[in-house]
This record gives sequence, C-alpha cells and structure tokens, in this order.
Amino acid sequence: MTDLVTFGETMLRLSPPQGERLETTDELDLRIGGAESNVAAAVSRLGFESAWFSKLPDSPLGRRVTVELQSHGVETPVAWTDDARMGTYYIEHGGAPRATNVIYDRADAAITTVSADELPLDRVRDAEMFYTSGITPALSEAAAEATSTLLEAANDAGATTVFDLNYRSKLWNHEEAAAGYRALFDAVDVLVAAERDTREVLGREGSPEDLVRGLVDEYDFETVILTRGEEGALALRDGETYEQPVYEAETVDAVGTGDAFVGGFLAARLDGEGVATGLEYAAATAALKRTIDGDIAVVTREEVEAVVGEDDAGISR
Amino acid sequence: MTDLVTFGETMLRLSPPQGERLETTDELDLRIGGAESNVAAAVSRLGFESAWFSKLPDSPLGRRVTVELQSHGVETPVAWTDDARMGTYYIEHGGAPRATNVIYDRADAAITTVSADELPLDRVRDAEMFYTSGITPALSEAAAEATSTLLEAANDAGATTVFDLNYRSKLWNHEEAAAGYRALFDAVDVLVAAERDTREVLGREGSPEDLVRGLVDEYDFETVILTRGEEGALALRDGETYEQPVYEAETVDAVGTGDAFVGGFLAARLDGEGVATGLEYAAATAALKRTIDGDIAVVTREEVEAVVGEDDAGISR
Amino acid sequence: MTDLVTFGETMLRLSPPQGERLETTDELDLRIGGAESNVAAAVSRLGFESAWFSKLPDSPLGRRVTVELQSHGVETPVAWTDDARMGTYYIEHGGAPRATNVIYDRADAAITTVSADELPLDRVRDAEMFYTSGITPALSEAAAEATSTLLEAANDAGATTVFDLNYRSKLWNHEEAAAGYRALFDAVDVLVAAERDTREVLGREGSPEDLVRGLVDEYDFETVILTRGEEGALALRDGETYEQPVYEAETVDAVGTGDAFVGGFLAARLDGEGVATGLEYAAATAALKRTIDGDIAVVTREEVEAVVGEDDAGISR
Amino acid sequence: MTDLVTFGETMLRLSPPQGERLETTDELDLRIGGAESNVAAAVSRLGFESAWFSKLPDSPLGRRVTVELQSHGVETPVAWTDDARMGTYYIEHGGAPRATNVIYDRADAAITTVSADELPLDRVRDAEMFYTSGITPALSEAAAEATSTLLEAANDAGATTVFDLNYRSKLWNHEEAAAGYRALFDAVDVLVAAERDTREVLGREGSPEDLVRGLVDEYDFETVILTRGEEGALALRDGETYEQPVYEAETVDAVGTGDAFVGGFLAARLDGEGVATGLEYAAATAALKRTIDGDIAVVTREEVEAVVGEDDAGISR
Amino acid sequence: MTDLVTFGETMLRLSPPQGERLETTDELDLRIGGAESNVAAAVSRLGFESAWFSKLPDSPLGRRVTVELQSHGVETPVAWTDDARMGTYYIEHGGAPRATNVIYDRADAAITTVSADELPLDRVRDAEMFYTSGITPALSEAAAEATSTLLEAANDAGATTVFDLNYRSKLWNHEEAAAGYRALFDAVDVLVAAERDTREVLGREGSPEDLVRGLVDEYDFETVILTRGEEGALALRDGETYEQPVYEAETVDAVGTGDAFVGGFLAARLDGEGVATGLEYAAATAALKRTIDGDIAVVTREEVEAVVGEDDAGISR
Amino acid sequence: MTDLVTFGETMLRLSPPQGERLETTDELDLRIGGAESNVAAAVSRLGFESAWFSKLPDSPLGRRVTVELQSHGVETPVAWTDDARMGTYYIEHGGAPRATNVIYDRADAAITTVSADELPLDRVRDAEMFYTSGITPALSEAAAEATSTLLEAANDAGATTVFDLNYRSKLWNHEEAAAGYRALFDAVDVLVAAERDTREVLGREGSPEDLVRGLVDEYDFETVILTRGEEGALALRDGETYEQPVYEAETVDAVGTGDAFVGGFLAARLDGEGVATGLEYAAATAALKRTIDGDIAVVTREEVEAVVGEDDAGISR
Repeated sequence: MTDLVTFGETMLRLSPPQGERLETTDELDLRIGGAESNVAAAVSRLGFESAWFSKLPDSPLGRRVTVELQSHGVETPVAWTDDARMGTYYIEHGGAPRATNVIYDRADAAITTVSADELPLDRVRDAEMFYTSGITPALSEAAAEATSTLLEAANDAGATTVFDLNYRSKLWNHEEAAAGYRALFDAVDVLVAAERDTREVLGREGSPEDLVRGLVDEYDFETVILTRGEEGALALRDGETYEQPVYEAETVDAVGTGDAFVGGFLAARLDGEGVATGLEYAAATAALKRTIDGDIAVVTREEVEAVVGEDDAGISR
Repeated sequence: MTDLVTFGETMLRLSPPQGERLETTDELDLRIGGAESNVAAAVSRLGFESAWFSKLPDSPLGRRVTVELQSHGVETPVAWTDDARMGTYYIEHGGAPRATNVIYDRADAAITTVSADELPLDRVRDAEMFYTSGITPALSEAAAEATSTLLEAANDAGATTVFDLNYRSKLWNHEEAAAGYRALFDAVDVLVAAERDTREVLGREGSPEDLVRGLVDEYDFETVILTRGEEGALALRDGETYEQPVYEAETVDAVGTGDAFVGGFLAARLDGEGVATGLEYAAATAALKRTIDGDIAVVTREEVEAVVGEDDAGISR
Repeated sequence: MTDLVTFGETMLRLSPPQGERLETTDELDLRIGGAESNVAAAVSRLGFESAWFSKLPDSPLGRRVTVELQSHGVETPVAWTDDARMGTYYIEHGGAPRATNVIYDRADAAITTVSADELPLDRVRDAEMFYTSGITPALSEAAAEATSTLLEAANDAGATTVFDLNYRSKLWNHEEAAAGYRALFDAVDVLVAAERDTREVLGREGSPEDLVRGLVDEYDFETVILTRGEEGALALRDGETYEQPVYEAETVDAVGTGDAFVGGFLAARLDGEGVATGLEYAAATAALKRTIDGDIAVVTREEVEAVVGEDDAGISR
Repeated sequence: MTDLVTFGETMLRLSPPQGERLETTDELDLRIGGAESNVAAAVSRLGFESAWFSKLPDSPLGRRVTVELQSHGVETPVAWTDDARMGTYYIEHGGAPRATNVIYDRADAAITTVSADELPLDRVRDAEMFYTSGITPALSEAAAEATSTLLEAANDAGATTVFDLNYRSKLWNHEEAAAGYRALFDAVDVLVAAERDTREVLGREGSPEDLVRGLVDEYDFETVILTRGEEGALALRDGETYEQPVYEAETVDAVGTGDAFVGGFLAARLDGEGVATGLEYAAATAALKRTIDGDIAVVTREEVEAVVGEDDAGISR
Repeated sequence: MTDLVTFGETMLRLSPPQGERLETTDELDLRIGGAESNVAAAVSRLGFESAWFSKLPDSPLGRRVTVELQSHGVETPVAWTDDARMGTYYIEHGGAPRATNVIYDRADAAITTVSADELPLDRVRDAEMFYTSGITPALSEAAAEATSTLLEAANDAGATTVFDLNYRSKLWNHEEAAAGYRALFDAVDVLVAAERDTREVLGREGSPEDLVRGLVDEYDFETVILTRGEEGALALRDGETYEQPVYEAETVDAVGTGDAFVGGFLAARLDGEGVATGLEYAAATAALKRTIDGDIAVVTREEVEAVVGEDDAGISR
Repeated sequence: MTDLVTFGETMLRLSPPQGERLETTDELDLRIGGAESNVAAAVSRLGFESAWFSKLPDSPLGRRVTVELQSHGVETPVAWTDDARMGTYYIEHGGAPRATNVIYDRADAAITTVSADELPLDRVRDAEMFYTSGITPALSEAAAEATSTLLEAANDAGATTVFDLNYRSKLWNHEEAAAGYRALFDAVDVLVAAERDTREVLGREGSPEDLVRGLVDEYDFETVILTRGEEGALALRDGETYEQPVYEAETVDAVGTGDAFVGGFLAARLDGEGVATGLEYAAATAALKRTIDGDIAVVTREEVEAVVGEDDAGISR
C-alpha cells in the first residue's frame, strides 16, 4: 500500500545563474518541477512511500523527470508516449526591484492527452492519501477528466483526498477555474487554498477566518488550510482554527515553497499528527526549501524536526 | 543594400557537457542554431552585410536569438508575436559507438504562423543574394507560402537565390519534400544538395557527376553544389564541374558544418570569386566550424584564408 | 539619423567569482565596460538607435567589445589599429568590511591615439544626442582633442550634448580635471555631476541646490543633474529643481549603476519626456542594473516602466 | 521477485576536471562507484528489477549513494549505521604517458562491519540472479562472511550466481585472494575473470582457451567468461567457446567498463538470451560506457541494441 | 629564525556550491583547512615567517595541503608517511533555518601516528612563537604526546607559546578535554578560549571578566583572550582588561573566522604591538575572513589596516 | 645554497575553455606562465631548491604570480614596484585546421624596468646553476643589462649557466636577436636551441649534427642541446652526440613543453646524471607536461621516472 499518490504535470526547469539574464546567458541549470511531484518528493523524503502519476514523452527529456524523482524515492508509474512533447519552464531569478520571471512552455505537453485508463488506477484505490492541484485540470479537457476520475476513485476507496487550488492565470481565467474547482470539491477532504485565490477566484470575502469557515460551510471539507504568504497559514478542522506563522528563512530559491508546505503537512498527517503539528511541519519544510536551489525540498525529517524544535541554525561540529 | 538576406527558423539549442547525458545532467549550454541564421552569421563575419528574416516570440527567449545574431553583425528585422512559442532543440554530443542525439521541440514555433506581409519585403528586393533552406517550407503551410513569396520576390528583383535542400525526415516525408522543393526550384539559381537527399528525396541516380548534371538539366539551375560528407563536394556551373575535398579537422562540434560551408561559399561569391575559389572558402569555413562549439562559425576572414592557403595549424607567437 | 552617439573607451573587465580573490582564483569572468558604451547599450535596449565611437586593437580582444555591444543593438563604427593594446580592468567584488577592488590596466590603450579624423564625424552631426564623459579627455592629449572636436561638432549641428564628469583620480588630479572639464563646458547642454566631484574637483560649495544653481549660473547649462549616491539625484532646468530618490535594490553588481542612470534619463528624453519623468526612468534603470552582473543594464523598457510604476518585485506566473 | 540482487561496496568517487591534477585543483566532480552497484544500475537501466545490498553510514554521504542508485531504478535495501565512515576514492584521469591515478580511501568503511543478518536475506532467495565480485570478501572478515552467506543462500534457492574476480592488489595478495575466491567457487554458476587475474592469482597457464577450460574443469562452473581487455572476451559454456571482440569507442572515462560488460551480459541472460548474444550486449554496453563520464553505464536498451546492430554513430535528426 | 611555528592537523575540505546539498550535488569545491595551518597562513600573509608542522600521507592528497600552504608563504617541514590516510571534512553551507553541516572524516589520519622525533624540533626552539590548539592533543595519544613535547620545547627555549582551546565534542568529552588542556597549561603563555568552552569544559563561572581573571589566577597565563562570538573579545594581561567588539561583515564563509582572529593577533604581537592593537588586528582579520571563501584569510596587511582604520568599504577607483 | 636560480618575466595567462573563442567567451581560465618560472617550477617539483628572480607590480596581479610559484616550492625574491603593469597573455587553444592563437600584452611590464641592483645578487653567486632565456634580454634595454649582469655573476662564481634561445619574433628581429644572444654567449655553459632558431636567427646551416658542432666550435659551449620538435632532441658534449626521441603524448596543452624539457634536463644534471639520462628526463617531463593544463609541469619525480622506465600508462589500482 502506497502512502501517497499524486497526479499532475512535471516540467523541465531551466534557469540562468543568479545575476544573469535569459537573454544573454550561455548556461542554464536544469532541474525539474511540478506541484504534484514536488509534494510526492517531499513526502517520500520525510519517510513515506509515495508515487507520482503522469504522462511523459518516451525520450531522454521524459526520463530526466523520472530519474530525478526516483532519486528521492518516488515511484513513477507514468504513461509513456512517443507523440507529445515535454513541458518546460524557464525561471530567471530576480531581486528587488527586478521581478522573478517565469516563462512557461507547456502547451501540448504529453500530459494534456492523458487518460485515466493509461494509469494504474488500482494503486490510487490502495493509497492512504491522494493529492493533486488545480493546475492539473487546467491543462486540458483530458487532464481534467483524468483528474476527476482519479480523485473520485481515491475518495470512493476511502483515501484522504487533498487538493491545492494553485490558480494559474496563464492556464484559465477566474470563472473557468472556479467551475473547474467546484466540479471536484465533492471528492475533496482537505483543501489548501491561497488567500488571494480564495478571494479572487472563489469570490469569498471577509477575514481569513471568514474565508476558511465559509469554505467549510459551503463545500463541507474535512479540513481547510488557507496559506497567506508572509502572514503564515490558517487552518480549520472540526470547527477549530489553527494559526501558523512562517519560519524566517535566508531564501536561495522561493519556487516550490508552497509544495514543500503541503508535503510537510501531509507527512505529519500520515504520521497520525493533528492539524497543529501538521502546520508546524509544513512551515518548517517550507522554510528549509527556501534555502535550497530547485523546486524540490531536499530535506530530511531530522532537519524538519530541528526547525520545528527551534534549534539554532549555526554550525555543529 | 544588404548583401545577403536569409529566411528561416532559429531555435534555442540546449546541450549537456561532453560525456554527460540529458537524462542525468544538471547543466545545459545554451546556444542558438538554425540553418539560415548560421549562414547569415558566417557571411557577416566574413565581411558582408547580412540580414535574417524570421518570426519570434516577444520574450527573453526570442530576444536571446536576436542578441546572439546581432553580436555577429547580422541584422534581425523579424516579426514579433505574443502568441507563439520558441522552437528548441536538445543536442547530446556522442562519440563512437554512441550516436549524437538531437531532440527537436519545434512544433508551433512562432515561425509556423509567419506571413510575408509581416516581413520587410523591400529589403529582399534590394538584396544581392537571398538564401533559405528546405527546412523552412517544411515547417507549416504558412511558412511554405512565405518562403515562396520571398524567394520569388528576390528572384524577380534580380538577386541571386540560393537554396539548400536540408531534408529533415522529422518534418516531412520524401514525397512531400520533393513536391515542396520542386514548387520552389523555378526561382532558385544556386542549389546546394546533400548527395543522400538528392538520391533518396529527389530520386536521382548514377555517379555524383550524373547527379549534378541531371539536376541542372531538369531544373535549369545556374549552379549546383553536391555535398558528399567526407568525400567533399562537387559543383557544376556552365557545364564545368569542380571538385573540392574536405580539410581535415579536429572536431569539437559537427553541428552547423554544412551551414558554414554554404556561408563560406556565398562570401566568396559576394567577393566576385568563381566556383573553385568559392568551394575552397566553403570547405575551409566548414573545417574551422568543426573546431568551435556551437552552430555558428565564429571565424574571421583571415582564419579562413589561412586554411585556404594551407598554413600550418600550430602556434604563432 | 542616429538617436544617440557616444564616444569613449571600453575595456575588458575581468573578475573572479564572488568570495574569491584575484591572488588565488583560477577563473575570471569576462565582460566589457566603459561609461560611454554602457550608456549607448542602455539607450539601445530602451528602444533607440545608438552608436558608440572609439578606437580598438584589430584583434579578438578588440572584437570582443564590438561583439558584445552589437548584441545589444549598438552600432560600433570604431577605428581599428594594429599598433595598440586593449585596455583592461580587474574587479574583485568586496563585501563589508572588504572594499571592492578595481585595478586598471589601461595605459597605452588604442583609444589614447585616437583622432577625430578616424571617426565618422558625419554621424555625430546627424545625431539627435551626443554623450561622452570626463574619462575620455583624461586618457591622452589626442583623446582630449578628439573629445573636443566631436562635442563641438555635435553642438554646432544642433544635437543635445550630454557630459558626465566621471572624475577618475588615477587619470588626472583635481586641477587638471577642472581645466579639462571647463575647456568642454561651452559645448555642453546637459551636465551630469556627482556631488563629490562637484565639490572636490569643481570646487563648489553649499547645499545641493546651491551646487546645481551655481553650475548653471557659471556655465549656462540647459540642464544639470547632481547625483548623490544613496541620497538620490537633484536636477535643475529652466530654474526649476527636481528631486529623485533611489529605488532600493538587492545589489549583485554595483558597477555601471551611474551609466544606467544616465542611459535611463537619455532614453526618456529621446522619448520627449521632461526632467521629472527622465529622473524616474534614470533611477529605475539604475536600480535594475544593480541586480544584474556586469557593467551593462541588460533590461527592457517594460522592466523599467514596471519599476517606475512601482509594481511589486515578486514572481509573475 | 527481483531479477538481480548484488552485494558490495560503493564509494564516493572524486575526480578533478580533465587535464587538472589532484594536487592543484580547486574543484572535484562527485560521482559514486562500486562494481556491484555499477552492475545493478546497468541491469536496471536495461529493463530489469535490481537491488543492491550494502551497508552505509547514515549521513548525507551515505544517502548520496542511494539517491544516485535509486535514480537509475535500483532498489537500495541497505543497512545503515552511525558508527562508520564512507569509503571514498579519488581518480585523476591521465592520458599517455601519464597514468590514470586512483587513490582509495576505503579502510573502515561501513561495509567492513556488515553482517548478513542486517540484510533482507529473503530477497536474495527470491531473486533470479545474484552477483558479487572478489572485492567484497577482500574488504574485511565480516564482509567475507556475509558474501559467503549471501552467495550460498542464493545458490541454495536456485538463483543463478555470478562472480567477477576483480582482483585488487591493494586489498589482499595473490595467495589470500586465491584462497578467498576458492572458498566461494562452489556456490558460483557464472565466473567472470580477467585474463591477468586468472594467470597471476589463480595461477593458470596456457592459451585463453586453456584458461577457460581449466577453470570449468577444476571448479565446475556453468559458464566462464574470460575478459581480455583490447582482445575482447572468450566464454565457455557446455563445452562450447564464444569469442567476442570489443567495439571501438571514443573513451571519455574508462572506469566501470568491466562492470558495464557484466551488466550487459546479465541483462541479455535475464532476457533468455544465450552466451553469444549475451557477449554482444556485454561488449556494446561496455563500449557505450566508455563514452560517458562516471562509473555507471547511463544507457538505454535501444542504444545498446543499436550498437549490437552496428548502426552508424552519426547524428540522427 | 622563524617567527611562528604551528603544529596540528590540516584536512581536505569539500563543499557543494551554495544552495546545493551533499546528497545531490555533482560538484565539490576543494580547499584545505585546519586551525594551526589557518593561523600560520594568516601570519605569513601579514608579513612574518611561519612554518607548519604536521604529518601527511605521501600522495597527491597530502601534497594538496603543502601546495596550498606554500602558496601563502608557509613553510611545511612535515613528516611524510605511506601508511596513513588524509583527514577530510565536508561542509555544506546552510542559511537560516538550515544549519551549516560539517561531517568530519578524520579517523586514522596520518597525524594520529605523529611523533615529535619525526619533526624538526630545532626549528621550534629557534622560533619566536609557537602555536597549537586543543584539537591536536585530542586526535590521538601520539598526537597528544607530540603536542606536549613541542610545546614544552618551545617554552623552554623562550618562545611565546599560544594555545587555543578549540574544543571539539566529536573528538573527546568535557572531562577528557579538561584533563588534556590542563596537562599543557604550564607551558602556555597566551591562552585563547571561547567563552562557552571556558564555562562548559573548564567549568568556570561568572561574568566574562570573572572568567579571564579566574584563568590567569589559576594557571598563571601571561595573557588570556576570551572570544565571545558576536559579543567580541575580552583580554586580560598584567591585570588589565581589553574589550574588542566585532567588525560587521557580509559573511560568505564563516569557517576559519576564529583562526583568522588568532592570526591577526599574533601578527600584531610579532610586530611588537600591545594587546589593544592586537585585538583590533584580530577582529579586522576575522571580519575580512568572513567575506572570503575557504578556511584561510587570504588578506593583506594593507586590507587589515584599512579595516582597523575604519575606512569605508566602497569601491576605490 | 640554492640549486637553481632563474631570471625572467612571468605573465598572467588567460584562456577560454576548449572550443570557445576569445571573441565570444564569458569565462577565462587564469594561470601564469613564463619560460624561466616554468623551468624553476619543474626543477623544484623534481626535488631541488629553485628561486625565480623578476620584477612585479605590487598588486594582487603581481602576487598572483608569486602565490602560484610558491605553491610549487619556488622561492620568489622579486623586486616589487608600484609603477608598472603586469604582463599578460591570452591563449586560445586551436585544433587543426585552426591555429592556437597567442596574444601578448606585455609592453611596459614591470620587468622592463628591472635593474640587477634590485635583486639579491648574492643568491646567484651561491647557486649551483643559473638559467635564463632569450626572451629576457629582448624585453628592454634594462632587462638586457640585468640579464648580462646576472649571467656573468653566476658564471664568475662558478655556477653552471644555461641559456635557451627562445626566439620571439614579436620582441625583436633576427639581427637584433643574434646580436643580443652573442653578447651573452661568453658566459653560457649550456645552450638550448630550437633547430629553427639556430638556422634562421643564428644563420647556421647543415645537418642537425652540423648545427650542434658548429655552435660548440664557434662559441665554446660546454653542452649544446638542439630541440627539434617531433624529431626529438640532439645534444653535444665533449665531442659526443646524444639523440633523444620524443615520448608520445595525448596533448591537453602544448604550451610550456619546451620549458618542461629544460626543467627535466636540469633536474637530472643537478642529480649528477650525464647528458643521455638528462635528455630522457627532459623528454619524459615534456611529454607529461603536454597532458596537463597550464604552462607548468605539475609532475612528480616518480611520474617522470615511470615514463623514463617506459611503464604503461594505464590505471593502477
């Protein structure tokens, strides 16, 4: 039995060295990134069995993804195809007042043709937890249908289902996204939602507490976690709210912070921990991620627990 | 008046360090490459004014191309668009018995939507020479139509028109390519054709001399240059044939050798040289290119002439 | 008609990686840098036609400069010579309390033998704007004479002439510099002057406003811009003063900030903007430059305008 | 059921860039290497399920090994310890007349304290094949005992057992090695032996054919493969001999060639192929390995088959 | 006559690039580090003759150490052996909340078998100053005995003897260390002690001033310097105390800061300066070290003096 | 007593990575190089005490040279000056048919103002051997005078004096060089001369044997070594000739080969070996140098002896 199955797109991630620009660089760092594989990798590194479902081109570029995910212990029972390309994104790290610049080149990626039939559905039914994000149904109709099929299969089988809104304005607009999300909410137990997406896409108003209570009232989620950037996070479960501040971090690379947060939370939950501890693990994993280059939280459970326990970040000899 | 206008697609070119594999590398060298811009850059570097026509996404990735071409003195009056992606190719250099591996990711690149209307047609009419290759019409119907329009405009205006078959099996099959080529041949003065393409795509047979004579007989080209890999090249003009062996080279990167060959030939022709001298410049530029990383022949006229003059390749202090 | 012509020296710039020292490093980054080419590159990147005049050795080192400037769209109608060397400077980036260390090796550089006769004077007469800095006349008598000739030609032809004091204590002392500047001021419309140089070299006293009013009173400049480091800038035109604070920046490389400032200002002016907007563009371009490695402001107009409009510097997806 | 279980030591591998020396380099490439994990990785990459048994320090250095092996799909059910160090080796690539220099720093590595009890013996009993090499019993008495236990368990359970002499003079002398080997031979089905080790350590004489026949006669191996460097390989099974020449290769890194050879052979055997085909796969995998940096044959089955099928090593576009 | 002789272990130091992890990096920077050689290098760079005593394996790895120390002018009359390994340490730089991670791999290093007989004892007797730290006697009994022999020889010959506690919990516990230290204190003139080690290992209590006075009272040191991290340092000599704050620094690499502090202090003392000036040089050298990659303070006397004189850390052109 | 003193210029050496061009590279490797310091470094590395005399700017660039030479054990009692620059050379490695390109930028280097008074003449008088090359007197009149003074002082004191013609056409012409050489020959014991320089500059004719005999007859050298590139070397001493072929080498960097040859010869001579053995050491050191990046033969005596003894260049484990 797998602890966690995730489903989504993972792209190649290409970035110039710090201080250099895409226009003029002669060198790119190659990593991989995708919300669902980032979460699977974090959960695997924190001690659980995770698997990532997707569809990839049968080429060195597709294998680049499975090679890196396997290195973190993630199983990769993906569908392979000869007929589609590899999604790619370019990231040029900024620094005030220059914005970090992300260029997506993901149209017609292999996953846009995915069908639930191509994936080992049984493994979803056997999993303790299933996770996907709002990026996946936005990729194509086929991807939306597969998302729905997998989410419902997991839910029907009794797995805890987790969904992160992860609104991407370059994939769909507010109305499309809201409709897409709502079509899935019935099958979702745990919702992770950025405050801005909650307001702008789902159209909710009021205080952060209003937001989480409203979401639970309307959609009957078991748990809602509202992520609020520098303000930390606010969760609601069984009528009780939990606040979690962020741990301060010397940021090397902010991309993937949100996925590390989810990964930390899910790992704690798989361990049987409650919401409060889950949020601490989430925030600690997220802070550690910020100190590491790449999308993936290359951390250990000991490191996460050292942050939770508020140890000093000095040198230990 | 521009000496040479070329028209075609240029892609980003991503390659891992020598001895590393795409599956496992963490670093990619970023260059640009495209037959027509390679030729324009070589001709510019050898002392002539060249311009490259194309269509690019209005993004740092698109500008990466114009930045590099401008650095070699090539003018880049391209059409910019917000609605299309940047073509990309990955190259993993091999070494016997491991083949060099090229992965194209060029579908839906900006140039596939190009129209001659978007380009400064007047500059083609003013140019002394126009060059494109068989890759361009293979990219899309729109690109084929623009190729035809530009080639005919150049021909009508009295420019020398040069066409390199450059057959790419991943873009079209033999029949499609043959039809595509033939639709353009009327407007072509100088044909450059690989021996294999001449046989397999155009279906010609016999000795190399049979091939070039047959092409001239059938299509009435002013000049035909048959490129034969390690066997060198054979040209025909005004009934006379010219043979050119290759210059031996310590190869660092073989990609772009053929384009350097064409660039050297065209530069000599712009200088008023005949076919024999043109082929020497062609072979010398091609050999130098092989010693240099990247698609583009980053050479000087003095270096080309030193090879033509058969100077030693030692150290000069 | 060229929008801007600049004239001055550009050097190779060699720097070890951050945290390494010139004494012990095995690797140097190679860039180019020079006040006048930095300004030309910034103005070209912000959408105008610029050209840079200079004199270079006819060698790969000299071409290294034109290759990089051309990449940013700058025209480089320079005089080439076989008889002189390439100016070079080494920069070792510091960090408190270790000072950034700059070592100039510019004696006998090609430009020290430049004569206005070697340069396309007509292009200066056709230009809308002409820029040089106080470094150029300090390089040699010949360079001083050429500076004077070009500046007067531009002024006589009605171009806006812009001069940045850019005092360099390693090239001349206060008295020599003051005399050199004053010999040129008659032909200058817009003066850019660091507060310290204004006080120490030109010997002016009083408040910043006293300084700019004094300069205009004495030399009849159309516009004076006093740059005050962290204090921002103060300009005077038509009796009116304009203050501009700096935009905060996460500095990767501070070299070239002043030139980016001038480039931003000139681009706005070429656009027909007044002093207030010009200073905003100047400060925004300068702040962006600080986030980028190398002397040159590798920015776009959109990026500058986003800073002027005070958008957040986050990630846009 | 796992296709192949291997057991042995894997070390960190540190090497300066080509042309640089350990004495003066500031940078080392970090890879991992060990005969048994190299074989497991090759077999996994060629399409089979493999697992590698070992003992590692519970530290980032130990995890560096499992991370890289997992990336190639190898399972790593190793014993972890807090009380021992990570074996390391330094390799400085040479070039005639300078020898490649290997410095081992493997004393007291974690594996020297391994006991079969710490390892999942059941998985060996379930495996189709078991592989180890003569390095493992040479590491320590404990390692020798564990080797014997695992080899016999595999043999008793009916797995095909494969043993490569891999004599290392820095670990034991000829007499010790010969005794160590002979203690294991009873449980070995397939012996891989370098010609030199066969002569010098096992003391056999005569022609290569004499050697393989002698080994089979004395120890009753099912199959013997004699590896002869540039002379290729000679195998004997069921009284029949098989010769296999080497495929020529442009060598980037020769380390790991022998393990790639074994990996290719075992993969073919797992596929049900006979000795002749096995040797072809072996030689092809070995030749490909030589073109790749690092100990591990980062290849695909398609690539191996292309070499077996003698395709050209050109560029395929 | 040598100004300073030091004695101790120096290790290879391996570190991944900033933001990368040991588990996943493919590249390590190679430096060397050891308290006593760090001090010798700093003192040599600040203008004095220093020599470092140790024992090294006779291999490229051992020579890597002497090559780097000699580059800073340090003499290296070490004992060479064929029978021992090179101590190594790995450092993964952190950033809050991720701790910097140091992994020592120094067991059985060559120095653990050192004997005073193998070293040129005469040079210690001729030296003006002798320095070692509490790491050396902790390495092995042999090393402790050699430390004692050298320290007493220096003391007997009238050299100023300097000892830095440098407690390392991975080498011995509090009781062992306290006993080890006390066995040497009789021969020590100048003690450098971290506040924490003074309290935890030597068991002293009270205010910082209580600590230094207590140490002098009990052990009769000529001078005691208490280092207090961000709180600066407090020294006592001839009954008088001296306080020294830290100079703020933009830290690139904190390792070696304490050794740079000692090196600066000893250089000033060799110059005949008193405690107050010595502490200023110490703090300045330490601050500069923090801005430089690696263990060693690659600084000049001019740079140290510029910090002592509180010059700005801007750019000087 | 120093075994060998050398005197000459050492420059910074800047080179782009293999396959990249000076015009377009963003990165340069930094090494140092100079005939006399190359020889001193080789002799030091082969076990003797050597010192290098020169004059350097008192800057990080000057110290870069002494730092690297000291790392190889060479003493550097140089004259320092604030008033001159650092000589520099750029090297772009070629590959047939592209020549390796060397650009010298050495005019007005510090050594051009050297005077023998600034150097520790006593150390020359104490040395067993003195070496300089024909580059040094070509640098300036002052350098020529200092060369003469040092060479005569060494000769008068009974040292073996060694002179390598090392003709550089960019420094002087044939006539100037011949006159310069002849002014020094009286004080020279051992002459090293390239065959081409012997013919073209010294105007000698005939077979190689004619050349060496003619040189000895005319100038009364104790020993003459004629270096003949791929043809090896021919020496004459006491009327007897010695031939030495080259050892084949996989060349990474050919620069410095001749200096390594001289260094190997001198080391053998310091060991008391005769001409035949000296030439073997010379050829072996030269061949090893070719496999190593940079001017300096970073080799050990064991490595040289392994080549002399014709060991295989394989891997020793």
